[in-house]
Amino acid sequence: MNIVSNIIIRHDTLVDTSFWQSLISGKQLCVVTNVPIAALYLEKFLANFSGYFCSTVILQDGEQHKTVESWLSILNVLINDGHYRTTTLIALGGGVVGDIAGFAASSYQRGVDFIQVPTTLLAQVDASIGGKTGVNYAGVKNLIGAFYQPKIIVIDTAFLSTLPEREFRAGLAEVIKYALIHDKLFFDYLCQNIDNILRRDMSALSYIVDICCRIKNFYVDQDELDIKGKRALLNFGHTFGHALESASHYALLHGEAVAWGMLQACYLSRHLGYISGDDVASVVQLLQSCGLFFSLPEAITANQLLSFMGKDKKNEGGNIKLILLEKLGTAFVSHEVDLALIARHLHMA
Amino acid sequence: MNIVSNIIIRHDTLVDTSFWQSLISGKQLCVVTNVPIAALYLEKFLANFSGYFCSTVILQDGEQHKTVESWLSILNVLINDGHYRTTTLIALGGGVVGDIAGFAASSYQRGVDFIQVPTTLLAQVDASIGGKTGVNYAGVKNLIGAFYQPKIIVIDTAFLSTLPEREFRAGLAEVIKYALIHDKLFFDYLCQNIDNILRRDMSALSYIVDICCRIKNFYVDQDELDIKGKRALLNFGHTFGHALESASHYALLHGEAVAWGMLQACYLSRHLGYISGDDVASVVQLLQSCGLFFSLPEAITANQLLSFMGKDKKNEGGNIKLILLEKLGTAFVSHEVDLALIARHLHMA
Repeated sequence: MNIVSNIIIRHDTLVDTSFWQSLISGKQLCVVTNVPIAALYLEKFLANFSGYFCSTVILQDGEQHKTVESWLSILNVLINDGHYRTTTLIALGGGVVGDIAGFAASSYQRGVDFIQVPTTLLAQVDASIGGKTGVNYAGVKNLIGAFYQPKIIVIDTAFLSTLPEREFRAGLAEVIKYALIHDKLFFDYLCQNIDNILRRDMSALSYIVDICCRIKNFYVDQDELDIKGKRALLNFGHTFGHALESASHYALLHGEAVAWGMLQACYLSRHLGYISGDDVASVVQLLQSCGLFFSLPEAITANQLLSFMGKDKKNEGGNIKLILLEKLGTAFVSHEVDLALIARHLHMA
Repeated sequence: MNIVSNIIIRHDTLVDTSFWQSLISGKQLCVVTNVPIAALYLEKFLANFSGYFCSTVILQDGEQHKTVESWLSILNVLINDGHYRTTTLIALGGGVVGDIAGFAASSYQRGVDFIQVPTTLLAQVDASIGGKTGVNYAGVKNLIGAFYQPKIIVIDTAFLSTLPEREFRAGLAEVIKYALIHDKLFFDYLCQNIDNILRRDMSALSYIVDICCRIKNFYVDQDELDIKGKRALLNFGHTFGHALESASHYALLHGEAVAWGMLQACYLSRHLGYISGDDVASVVQLLQSCGLFFSLPEAITANQLLSFMGKDKKNEGGNIKLILLEKLGTAFVSHEVDLALIARHLHMA
């Protein structure tokens, strides 16, 4: 499957009836969104589908609502509104909406058409691409889910103009991740253009979204089911990040936790002799510019984080599978890092 | 994907350590079974896996337990016992166990290895093959689920020696279905050898299981996701059957309901000028031999059944998509049957 071909990057597409209708095969659809996005965009978006039978599900906003219950609430609407197997589910929102709606699309009648319309930076450059869907369960992120490719991903950077500042900055963590694991020139671009990006210059945003989608595709395309280790590099910073996210009870945003996690991975990469102190300093500086360099809440202890890391679904046996940097722009999978070494190099302050 | 290649038909395979261990990639597994099968076979089966980390889930027996709750109970065991993404789920049981365990395998950490070991005739010839998994929800069969192919399906007719008589006969309904939709010679074989089959002569059982697996594969292979209409022929008798199964609150077994449904489809095929009265009589006679020709409970009304048929997930719009017989051994999909005509030709007595 050519996964690149299902991404459409457009600008100002919110009201474009013929475009949206061309994406729907049947006459039924169900738009899944969340409270803030519904307030901003739902009415205009639904106006594209007059003449269609259209249900809506408005979820609560936030990772803590990425639950089995939210997933069932979508299925209940599909059932009660009489949706057939030919219906289309549209996720209009961030990564949480996309993950839950995608799992609902994968499991309703064993699978219906699914369209991703990511509205956050994080979802546009990461969560909406690659077919990973799911919900959190028993305190573990994405423990229940499916690989299920959307029919189309429509990425419109115009949505980013209303994204809350904190969420926008959190999304930049994933942008920086792509640069660090794959593209030194892109890392340099980010360092040089971070002011433009932070003021949400649309041409800068379009550029970084385009680059990030290509990098994500590069990895997903080689390893759709995440079993060959290729896609694993995309988890740079995520083993630390998921642990922090869980330990904070999702008070920290995913991108914020990943930013901290990337920094830990950088410190460890430096300790193991891969990257230099100057390299670490340039990462710190970029994260600082984005407001992504911060102290952890005092309530969170190193032991808590290590315990969560041991439970991460990507790990097996005593050692922790970590993604480290060989140099800026080049990552690799290390299986050889044991928890004690990680513990000694955690920067909690 | 060559779906045929994942079926292994063997005899007396219950205790064969090297065979079973050769099927497992990791060192963890979880066997999902039900109460009666656990009592008969679980201890011997688990003895094949000494040295492995092995969890077990023993579900209640029966279609009424094919629920979201049963599915979650498997996920809970996987989580609590610390199963990694490299674990293997084994379904040891009938269609219900296979469907629930398959959906759990598809959704735990977005998918782990899955092995089907069907122990009923129905599961050996039908449910275990083709990758359909799922649970019932909101009164609708298989409303939540996934297409998820097992890594291996191990079919051992020795399990059929302990199958309760009623379940064995219900399984024969699906065997007869394959003959009716695809193979007139096989239909003749069944009519001529039904006594041998009913006394569970192992060579007769091996023969019919082998033929049925090939026919099922023929259809699944052409239409894995059940979207091209090819696989739809396998639903012969099932639109009626599912309605009856739901209306009876699963007091009737799936095969019993399908037997009644096939008869209704035969009556309708006769009314529409396809098959002859003699053809219908020969189907009635074969079903009678198997104890599958019976009167419906009085509490079940035609209107109830028609209402359930309207809700069947395979239907869309006013008309009902039915599988009818062009002649014995040849089926086709009809979209042109409206509910009123179906209502006039229901044989409730």
